[in-house]
Amino acid sequence: MDKKGILIVVSGFSGSGKGTLMKELLSRYPDTYALSISATTRAPREGEADGREYFFVTKDEFEKMIAKDELIEYARYVENYYGTPRSYVEQKLNEGKDVILEIEIQGALKVKKSFPDTLLLFVTPPSAGELKSRLVGRGTETMDVIESRMNRACEEAEGMDRYDYLVINDDLNACVEEMHSIIQGEHRRSFRNQAFMKSMKEDLERLKEQQS
Amino acid sequence: MDKKGILIVVSGFSGSGKGTLMKELLSRYPDTYALSISATTRAPREGEADGREYFFVTKDEFEKMIAKDELIEYARYVENYYGTPRSYVEQKLNEGKDVILEIEIQGALKVKKSFPDTLLLFVTPPSAGELKSRLVGRGTETMDVIESRMNRACEEAEGMDRYDYLVINDDLNACVEEMHSIIQGEHRRSFRNQAFMKSMKEDLERLKEQQS
Repeated sequence: MDKKGILIVVSGFSGSGKGTLMKELLSRYPDTYALSISATTRAPREGEADGREYFFVTKDEFEKMIAKDELIEYARYVENYYGTPRSYVEQKLNEGKDVILEIEIQGALKVKKSFPDTLLLFVTPPSAGELKSRLVGRGTETMDVIESRMNRACEEAEGMDRYDYLVINDDLNACVEEMHSIIQGEHRRSFRNQAFMKSMKEDLERLKEQQS
Repeated sequence: MDKKGILIVVSGFSGSGKGTLMKELLSRYPDTYALSISATTRAPREGEADGREYFFVTKDEFEKMIAKDELIEYARYVENYYGTPRSYVEQKLNEGKDVILEIEIQGALKVKKSFPDTLLLFVTPPSAGELKSRLVGRGTETMDVIESRMNRACEEAEGMDRYDYLVINDDLNACVEEMHSIIQGEHRRSFRNQAFMKSMKEDLERLKEQQS
């Protein structure tokens, strides 16, 4: 089978637990997956290291990356840029690793446009009621906070259809294995195995000629 | 998640071992899968039972089934008809079973046309050389037989691209589990979960209204 890695975008409801899920997936299968590291112009926070949480760059450097098409996607939140450097992703894919980007829908759709083979996964709790209780939390949040989270969830839900798979996060352990199994199954998609199909056809033709 | 079963077409190279594979899949997961039973006008052979290997019908009955659109697909080989009765398949799908049809590419493409959500799987040995040694067998076949099998394999290979997944049959045990995992992963496809996505959106909107 073809050995190249798959580019995977993971999005999901805020409160769907996708951060924990990613961490667990990477710690269980470190040789299979690589997590893409974003570049940002915001200042590092306490405990963050350059090249681990983010690549920290200046605004000028970031804008040069945009100009040189060195970012797969980028966005500006408030005063800061965030983006996905192309080189790291391509290097890991060529090493045969499945590369995971944890970004939101706007970025997901941009990535899919430049890399049509990207796999889009959407993490969701098993029901809206369950999502609500995660959003409401332990009753320590103000009504305003809950309301704004709920509005955001409604927006996020609108994009669900654009994703290839829904990953139901009910039980963390089961969910990690399910996600792993979905991604590994995708490696068997015929469109991801053009080289295998080509060589199979060529080998068969050659064998047929030898026969006659 | 949506509970309806998936319609699955399994094709593959003659000699790819797909018959054994199907039998093993069904015996391991009898509650998950159902094998579609074809209708045919050919006479039952020794040991074959009506409704188990085939539904045995007369030519007249078969042609009435065609006229009433009671077959998902059918074909005529030599003097006999073979076809897939719609009612059995739909009944099993509605029970939530994943229904497997073991048919060839022409049939596969017809099924996909009437049921666009059909999952197409193609079983292949890991390489053309391996396929050849399976076709050549133990050296007891005539050159004519081998040549005709090889020609057929070349034709079969031409259709590979039309399938959704390639299933590599190297080790039977691993292959059964892989096929199971691919099919179960497919249940998480967003397009197969329209009802779940719809109710998630509606529930969230309702919760938002209750909030305000």
